[in-house]
Amino acid sequence: MSAATAESLQAEVDRLRLELQTLKSKQGVEKVSIGNYLLTRLAQLGVKSMFGVPGDFNLGFLDLVEDHPDIEWIGNCNELNAAYAADGYARVKNNSLGVITTTFGVGELSATNGIAGAFSEMVPVLHIAGVPSTIQQKHRPLLHHTLGDGRYGAYAEISKQITCHTAWLSNVDTAAQQIDEAITQCLTKARPVYLTLPTDFVQQKVSSERLHIPLARIVIQNEPQTEEYVVDQIEQRVKEVDGDVVVLVDACVVRYDVKAELMAFLEATGFPVYAAPMGKSAIDETWKRYGGIYVGSITDPVIKENVEKAKLIISVGSLKSDFNSGNFSYNIPTRRHIELHSDHVQVAYAIYKDIGFKHLLPKLTERLQQFYPTASKIPVVPFEAKPPKGTTAIITQRYFWPRMASYFRSGDVIVTETGTANFGILDVPLPPKSTLVSQILWGSIGWSVGAALGVAIAAKELGLPRTILFVGDGSLQLTVQEISPMIRLGLKPIIFLLNNHGYVIERTIHGKHRKYNDIADWKWNQLLDTLGDRKTETKSYTITTPKELESLLTDKEFLSNKTITLVEIIMDRLDAPRLLEDQVAIAEKMAAQAAQAAK
Amino acid sequence: MSAATAESLQAEVDRLRLELQTLKSKQGVEKVSIGNYLLTRLAQLGVKSMFGVPGDFNLGFLDLVEDHPDIEWIGNCNELNAAYAADGYARVKNNSLGVITTTFGVGELSATNGIAGAFSEMVPVLHIAGVPSTIQQKHRPLLHHTLGDGRYGAYAEISKQITCHTAWLSNVDTAAQQIDEAITQCLTKARPVYLTLPTDFVQQKVSSERLHIPLARIVIQNEPQTEEYVVDQIEQRVKEVDGDVVVLVDACVVRYDVKAELMAFLEATGFPVYAAPMGKSAIDETWKRYGGIYVGSITDPVIKENVEKAKLIISVGSLKSDFNSGNFSYNIPTRRHIELHSDHVQVAYAIYKDIGFKHLLPKLTERLQQFYPTASKIPVVPFEAKPPKGTTAIITQRYFWPRMASYFRSGDVIVTETGTANFGILDVPLPPKSTLVSQILWGSIGWSVGAALGVAIAAKELGLPRTILFVGDGSLQLTVQEISPMIRLGLKPIIFLLNNHGYVIERTIHGKHRKYNDIADWKWNQLLDTLGDRKTETKSYTITTPKELESLLTDKEFLSNKTITLVEIIMDRLDAPRLLEDQVAIAEKMAAQAAQAAK
Repeated sequence: MSAATAESLQAEVDRLRLELQTLKSKQGVEKVSIGNYLLTRLAQLGVKSMFGVPGDFNLGFLDLVEDHPDIEWIGNCNELNAAYAADGYARVKNNSLGVITTTFGVGELSATNGIAGAFSEMVPVLHIAGVPSTIQQKHRPLLHHTLGDGRYGAYAEISKQITCHTAWLSNVDTAAQQIDEAITQCLTKARPVYLTLPTDFVQQKVSSERLHIPLARIVIQNEPQTEEYVVDQIEQRVKEVDGDVVVLVDACVVRYDVKAELMAFLEATGFPVYAAPMGKSAIDETWKRYGGIYVGSITDPVIKENVEKAKLIISVGSLKSDFNSGNFSYNIPTRRHIELHSDHVQVAYAIYKDIGFKHLLPKLTERLQQFYPTASKIPVVPFEAKPPKGTTAIITQRYFWPRMASYFRSGDVIVTETGTANFGILDVPLPPKSTLVSQILWGSIGWSVGAALGVAIAAKELGLPRTILFVGDGSLQLTVQEISPMIRLGLKPIIFLLNNHGYVIERTIHGKHRKYNDIADWKWNQLLDTLGDRKTETKSYTITTPKELESLLTDKEFLSNKTITLVEIIMDRLDAPRLLEDQVAIAEKMAAQAAQAAK
Repeated sequence: MSAATAESLQAEVDRLRLELQTLKSKQGVEKVSIGNYLLTRLAQLGVKSMFGVPGDFNLGFLDLVEDHPDIEWIGNCNELNAAYAADGYARVKNNSLGVITTTFGVGELSATNGIAGAFSEMVPVLHIAGVPSTIQQKHRPLLHHTLGDGRYGAYAEISKQITCHTAWLSNVDTAAQQIDEAITQCLTKARPVYLTLPTDFVQQKVSSERLHIPLARIVIQNEPQTEEYVVDQIEQRVKEVDGDVVVLVDACVVRYDVKAELMAFLEATGFPVYAAPMGKSAIDETWKRYGGIYVGSITDPVIKENVEKAKLIISVGSLKSDFNSGNFSYNIPTRRHIELHSDHVQVAYAIYKDIGFKHLLPKLTERLQQFYPTASKIPVVPFEAKPPKGTTAIITQRYFWPRMASYFRSGDVIVTETGTANFGILDVPLPPKSTLVSQILWGSIGWSVGAALGVAIAAKELGLPRTILFVGDGSLQLTVQEISPMIRLGLKPIIFLLNNHGYVIERTIHGKHRKYNDIADWKWNQLLDTLGDRKTETKSYTITTPKELESLLTDKEFLSNKTITLVEIIMDRLDAPRLLEDQVAIAEKMAAQAAQAAK
């Protein structure tokens, strides 16, 4: 009996057991409140922290959270930041989920952008909204936090647009089942789910029997004959090109948890491997067969040639968004391309539905390891930082990012903001076991600050030593208050604040000298002290020259990382990383061509 | 020919002219870009400031805003705050509107809660979203800021839930007409409207002919015979009770601009008048026939008796939400109640549709002035501040609010936050020509800070001297960065920060000693200096005793208000205004009764 079949049978057994429990629940023996049922489910899945803001429709539930032995309530400063934090938390705690609890209307709607971002970027975030009691829902009085017209369902309608599943609890008998379904959908689809918790349901009792059966992400069980056929097809292609293959790693390798399977595949086959921006750090960047970042026509020329000259390219978990593909400029013909996804495979022009990479990759490893002798000889130029020649009086993007390479250490979790940082980091090789957390598809400025809170908490839970945030001054202003919980909770992230006096990503795109891209010049080195709690120590630096940066990065006290630290780096107001400039140039060129073609 | 009929004919003439222009537009003479067409329309309506955050789908439009001679771009720190600011601006600039411009997805969705609040509270806010070009909308590439699944229309679907009208520009020929319709709906319904502006439409040219015909709020033209009948009915009721009438003023008097008509009515009839919390300051609180705030069963006992003993109560613009009515505890039987609304009238049990108070009130003034001799003799206890007896070591809510009464001056614009401030201010009589801006129905914490920015700008445009904000520490943390634009723009609001170390409104409702209602204790007196622009002077005070407050409120330098000022008032962590405590007590009692009844 194969592993997949055993797993498939186990899944069916669990499903039947749960169905049985649904029917049995009314006779149920041990009882548990709905609020605690939900918390137990979350704790089972490794959730140790819950994000959100108190509000009068969730206070009863928060009592249970505060009293729960394994889950800590992280009071955020606002709901958007809480959603970002839940997103960041989920990205680092693989195979778990991020959870945010808000209150009816005013709270949940403030989180909209954060939840939409988790949808776009495929991050499992459970959004629990405390809502009016079922009695109030029936009579729909003109309560505060309503739209004033009795439409109690309007917020759920909004959530439907940006979640993969919504669960509106309204019946005690099915509540446990609805909660299980919501969590399973969240994990399986790696997308946000919306769950309402009426105030009068928090303490209502349900059977606890279901809790003995664990929940988990449901992985597609590939139909064996189709899978075999796909493996044959791929093997044949690889044979035809004599193992001249390049592997391209992208976002969904992380999102659908196939890092281990992929690494085994790469080790066995010896194929050279490159990453798209959203796949960066999915594979150890010090792996001897790893060659750096491929991002279409704006790729470093040597990398570009080495990827595109391969006779066959196998993409794993690819997500071809504009910023992840050099504005759709991949130079990889479909007939030389194989794409492995979470739920389908494409070999040249042929699409194979419902064949997921989680179970396919081990089969491919077995079948394709025969090519190791040839594949492992394909040269790969090591991916290294390239510091610029000469020095400058001020700190430039071209100097800063390569310099960071030697600052990073094994196990670091690095968060980059959507502005210049997302582009600058791409040229920096990261150490083993490090994780890069970024939001390239959704690209909401300010996200990284809330996310860094969630990341730092998750990192602490996993025993990872450092969380390092790179954020611009423009972005930090959007979500600045979320630094406060970092201090209050004793977290010690290192925040590199790239102060270029405004929105440089926008200036690079349009309005180089426009006032609307300027912002107020805050006293950044006072920020931690002002937003602290008067007890926890903080440390701030302002760095204006390469020499000062050099001396900071070798300073023992700074490197000891005993406190939360903010390092303000003064940069020129028009300085942008090369990749950002190239991305903007190519987008403009292609837009002009499209406009011409449309005429 | 009556005034109403002339106005009605003028409206028809304008409508026909606009229709004609739509047909003529293709032959159009003078051309204007769609971006500038929109800006001209806004400027015509008195919009002098536009709120928002730059993003790559609105930068082209922002060029036009920045270059516009009459409209200033107010760069906010984030979009939720921008929506709050547009809301605050619209509330003060009567008969104009608030405008917020955001970018596709990430920007517009961050504003969701702010727009929903404007819907709930009936505030005309125009939300302009910069969206991808019409070419991109057709091909729907995997752009950044999309949900990753090609649903370019999802954000408009979200907006539909929280606006009264959405205009999706997709055809140059009808763009001007769509813009006019959007703005007219916004003004007429006093609700937010969503308008998309594709990047390639900003510079597209349309005829400017329509711009010669002004836009305005469309007021219901009452059908003359129905109106006459309603006036007869009301006159008969008033006669039956010998003019023993009390008038109750509420939110919609402000929202639908009938303050002047109502004041004329009150002067001519001499009826005693009271206000609901949301109607506070709609009528000059020093008016000799004004008696204070009526809020159902939690009303001050003397006021309660004087209102409820009247044989007939005429409510104008009433909005009976929980917090605006003492949790629905009005003791006014329907048969003794007449309600005048913007679009209907109810006399006892009879409803008269499409009879609006704007034109009805002058008719009623004419007909009911005959009752002046009796009505003007009904005693009204003057509404006065009631300072507590004795002193306390710390500043209590009971001491603080009455003390503020003599600090206020004519023309002040006072903004109160949803927490304790909204309840505390109700016991304070306000001076003539002052305006109270609060958000009692929607009740989103943090709203007052963004709103205060918009309010301060509007106040400056209208030549009103002072903007005064009352906000708690818990609420200020949500939206704190919006203090930065206040400083950058040289505005000088006085911010009273009630520091009670957490969410006191939540503590009063539930979880008195729960950790989830605590927040970090920021160094509030450093805040203005940290979030400033290093140029503009700021001033901060920390006040802990009544004596210190007394001395501050009589200090010449403080009263000169030459800079933006933050006054931190240290209060006890459990101290709440009387009305908040009563509101919570009655809500709990009624919820328990409802739960009992449902069993």
